[in-house]
This record gives sequence, structure tokens and C-alpha cells, in this order.
Amino acid sequence: MTRFALTIEYDGRPFMGWQRQKHGASVQAAIEAAAAAMTGEAVVVHAAGRTDAGVHARGMRAHLDIARPVTAFRLMEALNALLRPAPVAILDCVTVPDDFHARFSCLARHYEYHIVNRRAPPTWEKGLAWHVARPLDAAAMAAGAVHLVGRHDFTTFRSAHCQADSPLRTLDRLDVVQSGDRIVVSASARSFLHHQVRSMVGCLALVGEGRWTPDDMRAALEARDRDALGLNAPPDGLYFMAADYPAD
Amino acid sequence: MTRFALTIEYDGRPFMGWQRQKHGASVQAAIEAAAAAMTGEAVVVHAAGRTDAGVHARGMRAHLDIARPVTAFRLMEALNALLRPAPVAILDCVTVPDDFHARFSCLARHYEYHIVNRRAPPTWEKGLAWHVARPLDAAAMAAGAVHLVGRHDFTTFRSAHCQADSPLRTLDRLDVVQSGDRIVVSASARSFLHHQVRSMVGCLALVGEGRWTPDDMRAALEARDRDALGLNAPPDGLYFMAADYPAD
Repeated sequence: MTRFALTIEYDGRPFMGWQRQKHGASVQAAIEAAAAAMTGEAVVVHAAGRTDAGVHARGMRAHLDIARPVTAFRLMEALNALLRPAPVAILDCVTVPDDFHARFSCLARHYEYHIVNRRAPPTWEKGLAWHVARPLDAAAMAAGAVHLVGRHDFTTFRSAHCQADSPLRTLDRLDVVQSGDRIVVSASARSFLHHQVRSMVGCLALVGEGRWTPDDMRAALEARDRDALGLNAPPDGLYFMAADYPAD
Repeated sequence: MTRFALTIEYDGRPFMGWQRQKHGASVQAAIEAAAAAMTGEAVVVHAAGRTDAGVHARGMRAHLDIARPVTAFRLMEALNALLRPAPVAILDCVTVPDDFHARFSCLARHYEYHIVNRRAPPTWEKGLAWHVARPLDAAAMAAGAVHLVGRHDFTTFRSAHCQADSPLRTLDRLDVVQSGDRIVVSASARSFLHHQVRSMVGCLALVGEGRWTPDDMRAALEARDRDALGLNAPPDGLYFMAADYPAD
């Protein structure tokens, strides 16, 4: 058995999400099917994060075990060939020690959320960014974001379906950067609650529109109540960018 | 009659190109149909450049005349609403003097060509960038590009179907910039010959692969012969970025 770590890019639009489902396409099932077709083995792929339907990845990390002798490069090439035409690409593949686990060894996860802020709808970015037609004040959003950084109870920003034991998370970074008609929110933490990034971004958009003050972000956080959530941003703009591991 | 100037973004994938065709969808026909639906007038839209099938635009400029009284903002909003679900968006709309002509008043045109240079195929950028799997040397490409800047006879880099009177063009800029697995070629000129940018980029890719030296770009240019062309890059990676006018 050799353990391989993958770096994966995918377009989330045609998928029900990362995780294998009984009904509907998933990124996990697509990669597992490609690996099984190549090796003849029943392969399970474990990812750093289980993204929701419509969420994308530029640098998802995952691992899988293969018994048959194969080099990392050959595995990457075969997976990419067999994954076509699904919009999933293996960007990198390396052998890792048997105790490496894409989910449990992960030290930090990095997301970006892309907003197209203009009157006109997106064209090629349809489904790849959140279109907000009303003008957003990115400086106010950045001021609001500051309140969420640090170790907090994020119950307000947590999906009702979240399975985590605790609502406590340490948010290491929540930056808001504007460039032309694009606003990118970058979020980093060891781990996130279900829907946490989308819920934080949804509320930041309310701040950007002027419907909330930056201080309302703190009030929402301190409420520790899902009912205090202003808005959950759609999956379209969310990208899993990278995951950090001890060996990196 | 009021003349309006439009700034247009479009995804070229579903279109036969900018120009109205007897058979097949075009960006021009889509905008003309939207304008006609709004005004009841037979509207003709003139663009700064006629992009080929599969070529995109982030900032195409165009103009049209409308008899019915309408504000520029209202026109933009109506066109965007009527264009759905076509991937064409009017980013800006302003009134201009009657002697403004999107094509003939244009002082400079700016293109970008995007290459994804990695083993793995693109995912959401399929059709939005040229995938080159072999490693490209961007520094060599930049060295080759220098030979094309200036006033030259670009016959080598001109389509057999080019209708321009002269093959002489002044290329003001041909930059090659690498960022991660992306290489962007930026080209600026008052005007370009048909297929000129794609032909220049195709040959630069040969330089990047090491099959041509940077000096081979000069030799190809000096040959003034379409048979000296090494490679025509596909439309996928080409974007019409912007056009300059005296009033800007």
C-alpha cells in the first residue's frame, strides 16, 4: 500500500458537493471511480474539507491508498485522463507517509469568496462568483470582518446541519480586498463550521450595503444564535484554496 | 437620434464571433435583438473589433443609435435584462457625440491572451484559456516578443482571410508575464490584422517550448510569408480587453 496526497482543482457547478452521495454526482465519487478504473481496487479518497454543492476548489488536498505499484506522476496523469470530461483536475500528486491524513493532519484551511459587485450580471463567471448589484463599501466590510477574527463561539454563523462537536473556532484571518468590480474575502482557520464562510460573507455584504454597521457583526457574533444571522451567501463565490500540513 | 457607447463583456464560447451571421449566434445579433426588443427600432451595433468564434471580451466598445428618448442607465439596464441568459453583459453605457464611431474613432486596442501551463487540464477555465501541458519558458517568450514590437509588415502573422488593405501595423506592446501556472500575453496596437494576436502567441509558445529560439520570431517576421508561421493559438485564451478613444 502506498499513500498518495493529491492537490485538486474543481468547478463545483455540476456537483452535489465533495462528498459521495447516493443520488447525484460528487467530486469524491468522480476521483474514486477514476482511481478504481486505473487500479482495479476499491479506492476511498479522503479530503481536507467537504465542500457543499456548487462550491469550487483551487487547491483541495486529499489522500488515497493504492496497493498496485505506481509512481505519483503516472497516477496523476492517469487520473486526469480518466476524469475527463468532468471539471476536476489533479494538479499535484506525491507519496506521503502512512500516517498522513488529509483531514486529520490538516493544520489550516484557506478559503476565498469572490463577489462581482456591479450592475451587469457575470458572463463566464456565472456560478463562479456571487453577483451583488448594489454598491458595496469594501472598507466597511473590512471593518466589520475584524470583529470575527480570533477564538469565538461561531454559533450564529453555523448551519443547522453542522455536525461539529463544538461551535468554538479560531479564525486566523478574514480579509476583504477590492480590485475594480471584484471583492475577495479571504478566510483562514484550522477548521471551519458548516456554512461558516458563506454565513460570514453574507453578513459582510449587509455591512457593505450599509444595512448593517461594522459593529453589527460583533453583535451578531455575540448573540450566538442562528437567528441573528443576516444572510447566508450562495455557494457560487466560494473556493477552497489551500490546506496546510506539518510537512509542507 | 442619440448615440450611445457601450462597454461589453462576453463569454465567446457559445458564439460564432462578434459579427452577425446568417447561421449561428453572434454577440452583435444578441445585442441588436435586445435593443430592438426594447425600442421597436431596427438597431445596428458597431464594435471596436470583430472577434472570432470562441474569443472573449472584458471591455469591448461599441456604439448604437436610438431614436426613442431613453437614458443611458435605463438602456444599459434594459439591455442586460433582455440579453439574459446569453453570456453578454453591458458594463457601461454613456451618450456620445454623433461623430463618435466605435471602430473608426478607436486609437488603440488592447488584448490579453491567457495560457494555463501545467500538466492538468483546466476545469472552470475550459474554453477560457489555452491549455499548454509542456513547460513554457516565459523569459524566452518575452525575449522573442521584443522582436515584434514596432512598425512591421506582419504578413507572416496574418490570416489568409484578412481583409485589411495593408499588412503594415505598429505593435505598441507585446508583454509576457508569468504568475504561477498562468502566462498572460498582453498586446496593444492601434489595430491588428486578422488572427494577428493568436498567430503571435502561437509562435511565442514554440519559443517557450524551446522548439524556436527567440531570434526565430524575428526570422518569421522578416519572412513576410504565412508559411513561416509556426502555430496559430486557439481562440480560447483570447480576450478583447479595452479600446482607447480621444475623449477617454
